[in-house]
Amino acid sequence: MARNITPKEQDYSQWYLDVIKTAELADYAPVRGCMVIRPTGYSIWESIQKYFDEAFKETGHVNAYFPLLIPISFLEKEAEHVEGFAPECAVVTHAGGEELEEPLVIRPTSETVIGHMYSKWVQSWRDLPILINQWANVMRWEKRSRLFLRTSEFLWQEGHTAHATREEALEETLKMLEVYRTIMTEILALPVIAGEKSEGERFPGAENTFTCEAMMSDKKALQSGTSHFMGQNFAKAFEIQFQNQNLDLEYAWTTSWGVSTRLIGALIMTHSDNDGLILPPRVAPVKVVIMPISKDENKLNNSILPSAMELANRLNNVLGSRSVVVDTEFHMRPGDRFFSHLQRGVPLRLELGERDLEQGAVLAVRRDNREKMLLPISDVENSVPVILEQIHNDLYTRALNFRNDNTFQVSDFSEFKSILETNGGFIKAYFAGGVAEEKKIKEETGATVRCFPLEDTSTGKCFFTGKDNAKMAIFARSY
Amino acid sequence: MARNITPKEQDYSQWYLDVIKTAELADYAPVRGCMVIRPTGYSIWESIQKYFDEAFKETGHVNAYFPLLIPISFLEKEAEHVEGFAPECAVVTHAGGEELEEPLVIRPTSETVIGHMYSKWVQSWRDLPILINQWANVMRWEKRSRLFLRTSEFLWQEGHTAHATREEALEETLKMLEVYRTIMTEILALPVIAGEKSEGERFPGAENTFTCEAMMSDKKALQSGTSHFMGQNFAKAFEIQFQNQNLDLEYAWTTSWGVSTRLIGALIMTHSDNDGLILPPRVAPVKVVIMPISKDENKLNNSILPSAMELANRLNNVLGSRSVVVDTEFHMRPGDRFFSHLQRGVPLRLELGERDLEQGAVLAVRRDNREKMLLPISDVENSVPVILEQIHNDLYTRALNFRNDNTFQVSDFSEFKSILETNGGFIKAYFAGGVAEEKKIKEETGATVRCFPLEDTSTGKCFFTGKDNAKMAIFARSY
Repeated sequence: MARNITPKEQDYSQWYLDVIKTAELADYAPVRGCMVIRPTGYSIWESIQKYFDEAFKETGHVNAYFPLLIPISFLEKEAEHVEGFAPECAVVTHAGGEELEEPLVIRPTSETVIGHMYSKWVQSWRDLPILINQWANVMRWEKRSRLFLRTSEFLWQEGHTAHATREEALEETLKMLEVYRTIMTEILALPVIAGEKSEGERFPGAENTFTCEAMMSDKKALQSGTSHFMGQNFAKAFEIQFQNQNLDLEYAWTTSWGVSTRLIGALIMTHSDNDGLILPPRVAPVKVVIMPISKDENKLNNSILPSAMELANRLNNVLGSRSVVVDTEFHMRPGDRFFSHLQRGVPLRLELGERDLEQGAVLAVRRDNREKMLLPISDVENSVPVILEQIHNDLYTRALNFRNDNTFQVSDFSEFKSILETNGGFIKAYFAGGVAEEKKIKEETGATVRCFPLEDTSTGKCFFTGKDNAKMAIFARSY
Repeated sequence: MARNITPKEQDYSQWYLDVIKTAELADYAPVRGCMVIRPTGYSIWESIQKYFDEAFKETGHVNAYFPLLIPISFLEKEAEHVEGFAPECAVVTHAGGEELEEPLVIRPTSETVIGHMYSKWVQSWRDLPILINQWANVMRWEKRSRLFLRTSEFLWQEGHTAHATREEALEETLKMLEVYRTIMTEILALPVIAGEKSEGERFPGAENTFTCEAMMSDKKALQSGTSHFMGQNFAKAFEIQFQNQNLDLEYAWTTSWGVSTRLIGALIMTHSDNDGLILPPRVAPVKVVIMPISKDENKLNNSILPSAMELANRLNNVLGSRSVVVDTEFHMRPGDRFFSHLQRGVPLRLELGERDLEQGAVLAVRRDNREKMLLPISDVENSVPVILEQIHNDLYTRALNFRNDNTFQVSDFSEFKSILETNGGFIKAYFAGGVAEEKKIKEETGATVRCFPLEDTSTGKCFFTGKDNAKMAIFARSY
């Protein structure tokens, strides 16, 4: 058991911070509520970005960059939007040594300024669709911050699209939700439930919001990515109009969708253990660490180290450059060297000692379950990718089983409360309530509607209002 | 001649803006002095980023992310630094609905906040070197902005390193200068002169600044990237101290280095012509456009278009995915279709018509010199990369010849002034003046010391002060 990490059973919040600290993922910045993403943490973000960016481009999107600063008057053009975001904004009042005529806010999200630009770019139906994504920093002032999960500044991508028809915009909203679900599942090994948000949990200004919800290892939910169907709300607020094929003027239909550095928090809280970070191999920047080990300094430098370097080259050719590293921190004790990679979540450790080398073998140790295997060196190009694949599958299955074991269907409120109290987790229940009922349930239990899952279209009697034909909802306490 | 672009001979500034507009690279944002980088412009930036990022990683650097907002008191810790940057800062005074206790500036550059973090991360010589880069937005309030060249917000990378010795930090400063020079030359086809800045042109707080200077097609200089040796200035201001191998406490030695979206301005002003954008192929996001052409709609859709798609697939396999596109804007006239790609700077156009297809050939037209070649379709995987290589070389050579033709060595001030007046360009001259003399020359001629070129170590009599043993300098008017 790691002495530098509080066990999660003892204090989950402290465990989370300790894992981040020992893996050197992030630090609090000198500005309250802001974070510094350290190289190990940032390389995970780069890895995440790579997969999402490629998927956005494969689905026809292009990247662009819009300004950091937005006039306050822009936010005010959409009533729900300004109500939702203005209280969280950081405001620039002075620049270049002078007071500004109109204060500018640091973007909390970019619908408004992008809507303004789209209104200039769109004239005809031929200018549609616009399929643009932006990778950027955004700012939402937080009184109570938590690294990666809730910080005043965070990094994200925000897709913003404009379409000629309602159907096409709705299709885009769901397409990007599915892109999110696929990458979260297949790359991040996060079992997520794709669903529709309830009225009370929608994005300010959206007609409909969809979400991917994950369960963390403390059984709380984490909203991991959202996709919004804006209807014509922002098109009307910013006059995004186009001439259709009949030469009539119409408002466009817009969407937006985003995932953020919060996903790093989801990775930590889904996979890691009391010894520190565990990363799914596909998103791990360093997938394999090779450790040359010997007490004979001569053999270490002249035989084992060169063999380790050669092994790293061979594996890098298969796994991608710089994803395999050789540990040469020979001034540290082997145990401390093992532990530092383990705490950084490197999925596989290969120990190369004298005897192993003589036998043409290397000892492989999995980070996730500590399983040890002796691998023939001649065959590592085949065996290592298979092991990494197995680690991914095992992490996913473990998280999925955990979620299933902690998901309960209920038919009345007392059962709902009792399960939340004794176990927590996801509560499935038919629900037909509105914003008022959601609020009541939240006040009494701390749980909110996480989503109406798309995969479950069954209907039944509402557990709370007793109404018939209620849709299946998932409730949980959440981050 | 393009009717939508002002000829550069008539109005260079307007030509520059017209090229940006017709290529849809960028727009002014609703916030004064800020820009929107449109998809075509941003894809060039992504292409630039890819090469620099790979080179940084190959030289052992890792990426990280530091906060956008910096307490004003941090800037004040380094006297020259605050004097240089405070007047240009945008200041956040309110956040989360309240006035802040201490105003925060939006980073104009991150030496201060990174210095603060390094002081926490560095204890022992074993923690050094720290080799970190950051890709980020920065803000320097501009009264007179120009797209890409001078905007209040811009995108850049800023490398920040800390070392145990002066020699190692100086070596790093020059190594990154050379990385810049190599990529500018080999990828952006920009002939640049690497050199040392004069005392009056140093980064605020640096002990020494190095630069890559390029000549634009109006003969003015553009500083394209800089690398700074900070000595121990920032280490002392932020207490970055380490215990050396003798257990003594020492201050670290730091560097910083950056290139920005300004490089897109350099590309435009070096290579483009009066018809619009010209891009060097290695940095062009779209390297080849294939245009199926026929008046017979049946043949177009059933024979030519499928052949064009197949050709695109074959070329994408060689040139990288999405670098070859097929133009299907059949509602436009062929001439307008040609022109739209030409104005966007696509290096090579392949026209595929009925007769060409029957002959197993495709007509290739180079963007840079309009040269036309009939290429056998069976061999495009070989011929097209060779042509693209030739375009790169020709663009580089043309720019280098232009610079050489407009570089003059002088030995006295009257010659200096006369050449600047009649021709402009780069003036080489031995110079031993200080800040006062630099200021005098600037006031009288508008020219500044661009650099003391590293490649010319000769010395001679100063053209301005008459002192002996003066170093060779390059003067020019600049952006």
